[in-house]
Amino acid sequence: MFLMNQWYAAALPRELTEKPIGRTICGQAIVMYRTASGQVVALDDRCPHRYAPLSAGTCRGEIIQCAYHGIEFDPSGACARIPHQATIPQKMRVRAYPLVERWGFAWIWMGDAALADPTRIPPYEWFDSPDWKSFYRYYHVPANYELCADNLLDLSHTPYIHAATIGTPDMDKFPLETWTDGDRVLSRRVMTDVIPGPFVAQWGNFAGKIDRVTNCEWRPACNIAVELFYEDKTNNITLRLTNPLTPETERTTHIWFAWSRNFGSNDESYVERFEQQSSSVQDEDNRLLELQQAVVDRGDPLPTVAIAADTALLAARRTVQRLLREEEATARKATA
Amino acid sequence: MFLMNQWYAAALPRELTEKPIGRTICGQAIVMYRTASGQVVALDDRCPHRYAPLSAGTCRGEIIQCAYHGIEFDPSGACARIPHQATIPQKMRVRAYPLVERWGFAWIWMGDAALADPTRIPPYEWFDSPDWKSFYRYYHVPANYELCADNLLDLSHTPYIHAATIGTPDMDKFPLETWTDGDRVLSRRVMTDVIPGPFVAQWGNFAGKIDRVTNCEWRPACNIAVELFYEDKTNNITLRLTNPLTPETERTTHIWFAWSRNFGSNDESYVERFEQQSSSVQDEDNRLLELQQAVVDRGDPLPTVAIAADTALLAARRTVQRLLREEEATARKATA
Amino acid sequence: MFLMNQWYAAALPRELTEKPIGRTICGQAIVMYRTASGQVVALDDRCPHRYAPLSAGTCRGEIIQCAYHGIEFDPSGACARIPHQATIPQKMRVRAYPLVERWGFAWIWMGDAALADPTRIPPYEWFDSPDWKSFYRYYHVPANYELCADNLLDLSHTPYIHAATIGTPDMDKFPLETWTDGDRVLSRRVMTDVIPGPFVAQWGNFAGKIDRVTNCEWRPACNIAVELFYEDKTNNITLRLTNPLTPETERTTHIWFAWSRNFGSNDESYVERFEQQSSSVQDEDNRLLELQQAVVDRGDPLPTVAIAADTALLAARRTVQRLLREEEATARKATA
Repeated sequence: MFLMNQWYAAALPRELTEKPIGRTICGQAIVMYRTASGQVVALDDRCPHRYAPLSAGTCRGEIIQCAYHGIEFDPSGACARIPHQATIPQKMRVRAYPLVERWGFAWIWMGDAALADPTRIPPYEWFDSPDWKSFYRYYHVPANYELCADNLLDLSHTPYIHAATIGTPDMDKFPLETWTDGDRVLSRRVMTDVIPGPFVAQWGNFAGKIDRVTNCEWRPACNIAVELFYEDKTNNITLRLTNPLTPETERTTHIWFAWSRNFGSNDESYVERFEQQSSSVQDEDNRLLELQQAVVDRGDPLPTVAIAADTALLAARRTVQRLLREEEATARKATA
Repeated sequence: MFLMNQWYAAALPRELTEKPIGRTICGQAIVMYRTASGQVVALDDRCPHRYAPLSAGTCRGEIIQCAYHGIEFDPSGACARIPHQATIPQKMRVRAYPLVERWGFAWIWMGDAALADPTRIPPYEWFDSPDWKSFYRYYHVPANYELCADNLLDLSHTPYIHAATIGTPDMDKFPLETWTDGDRVLSRRVMTDVIPGPFVAQWGNFAGKIDRVTNCEWRPACNIAVELFYEDKTNNITLRLTNPLTPETERTTHIWFAWSRNFGSNDESYVERFEQQSSSVQDEDNRLLELQQAVVDRGDPLPTVAIAADTALLAARRTVQRLLREEEATARKATA
Repeated sequence: MFLMNQWYAAALPRELTEKPIGRTICGQAIVMYRTASGQVVALDDRCPHRYAPLSAGTCRGEIIQCAYHGIEFDPSGACARIPHQATIPQKMRVRAYPLVERWGFAWIWMGDAALADPTRIPPYEWFDSPDWKSFYRYYHVPANYELCADNLLDLSHTPYIHAATIGTPDMDKFPLETWTDGDRVLSRRVMTDVIPGPFVAQWGNFAGKIDRVTNCEWRPACNIAVELFYEDKTNNITLRLTNPLTPETERTTHIWFAWSRNFGSNDESYVERFEQQSSSVQDEDNRLLELQQAVVDRGDPLPTVAIAADTALLAARRTVQRLLREEEATARKATA
């Protein structure tokens, strides 16, 4: 069960070309591509004729042509041509999904298209600012999207998993403040006089201990932005981690990932090292997420036991449950 | 659910030696081999003692000996010897299936052996004629056998999938005539002044446009023979594609494949190139079939939408449904 | 369904270090390790907090620390520390399993810990005697543990599977005597003037025919010890095969394996060849066991047909069924 009336990051703009790609979003197989005129299109990835996936087909001009029998569909999902016949059956159409490029991601709306309001795409304005240097990456992670969200919503894991990269060992002396604002879940931790992780020391040229502030914002369905501020007496740096998480299936997740920095240079060697370092941090998480999902997959019936650090992730899960109930209620009204 | 009282191609004769092979036919695990006297044998591939597959065993003379405890069975499936004991329990026997070599295939009868009439094996007489040069190949395809049959029963896909090999681009100007004759489904398309596919132009030494006639015959359970006639003012050639399709499981198929030609030479280099080209055409189909099955496997609930080109394949599916009902009725009478 | 109130071999002592290992025993995921003080520990392999497997964690001193959020557990399974908070919820604990090192194996008790009596570990005293040179190996076999046990309880397969290694061709002239003693199943075969298998001839320097005695003991849940005695006029040798079999899942088994010999030398080249030969015998069995399980997996509904050689394995299966009923009855009483 996924929230449907939400914007989900579905692709990086550079992936959307005249060569269609197939990707499963919230359990639905979707084909995405960019037409000759530049329009980005998302359709159900299945020719209604006989099961061939449209992602095996070809975009020609504004239409996509099925690889098997050459049936053509326009960006609205309407059939434009069936070879060998003049008439087109009414049912020969595929569902089209709103798809919008913003902030370096292409966002898809999986629910009622009439409700798809692009102003509800999370306002990640820093991607438009010259102050920030961003790089984007995509991870396919074999774990449920809520497990992936837990990881970002409770950073108390960083001294353990990320000890060798960005973890601050004595983090647990400092309380986490958590609150909600509408559908958002927010949290903040202020730390003083702590040891920075090895990567952080290098990025900020920090010789000794530092002060840190961590701010985290979660928006439904599952878009998480983390601001990491580090400073000592002579210098300060900020990292922004933008992570729209998109369920593929109940047990796999598309992790979209952009790290934006207000420090360092654009030299190729600097960029290369920074991207390698950032990715290695995510790799450390992904390894654990996969292990967690394996435990879930073996059908272990024991309940989880909550700890104090879970406040934000529990608030996010409660919000998802409430929004799911609201979607259900709306659907019931629509069919009543 | 498969038709049982039918002959299915189960092996190429060269596969049947004293070394048993295991193969699943219509969901049943079968062991096949050739005895010392030359008899070809098909038995259930499971020793009744304790689950060992007989295909791991050894054919010695006329018997097959289980690899595990040395229990022996004769070609009728009767147990001939149990080591360490003199008596043989009545239940120590395996089911034997009629197996007949004809036209370069070994045909198995999966249903009531009393009804197994070898004259009902499809009459593919061209394999006995010196006018035709044939070569045989086998493909294991991860797709339901009806999807595989659809591919051969509706050649309107050739301009798309086979554009680079044997497709005729302007095929859709010419109507397909479809009719039935008893349990057979027949179809025919006559095309004039069309561009031949690149391979066809080369095989027939066609410099420009050609005329074509395509004849297709389907026989239950799923045996398809296609005759492809091509000619221009100076030359004509014919290809015969013989494709007995045999279900392995509900989602996998044994595609048996023989291409017979009345042109070209027997030179090794000619034969090698021709076989490579023919196989590449089937590879183009197999790729699509696998993608279709993947769509079926994801459990997409949408119905298919028929088009005009589906006439022959729908007639074949109706015939299979009727024959399944007839087999059921016969089975009910037998147990009544 | 597995017997729970039994000792199962779970690891080789050399596997138990400060680096935890995860292993599934009777369907339960277990983490095992050795603490700084040398205690061997077995716990449920799942942090109660949020599914992370403890086997991804680290043993520090006497505690194991979860890799994800650093929660710590002592050898009793009690939580020793939760970072970021002072109190520990009662439910934050994992189940601990008795784990005892004996005879070169570490034995786990999967059932009621109150009943775990180490004197019930099978008395394999030869591992303590200087007369025997033993080597240990572990096999993960994709077959149900009862199929694996059948293999050792009925050695009438050796002339077939092990013809090239240790099989005696004319074994079936000699009867197998089978009897029970409490929960044990015992069998014995005395053979005279038989051809030794090629490996046996080499180990014992046997030029011609030999006499043999085979003794086999099965103890629940599934611990099998086989004594193989071979002699001619000038020499005799004995091999002891100790095989505790431990179910991993219903369709996979941990085969623990120790071969002890009272002959040969400790020279590196001798040992290397002997171990290679012994292992190749087990490889011959494992290949067959995997094929049997594949037949079981395909859901073949036919019953098995017993033969005379099955006496011991049927007695063992009956004993398991009886003990399962006794465990069930005890469990019912406990909850009544």
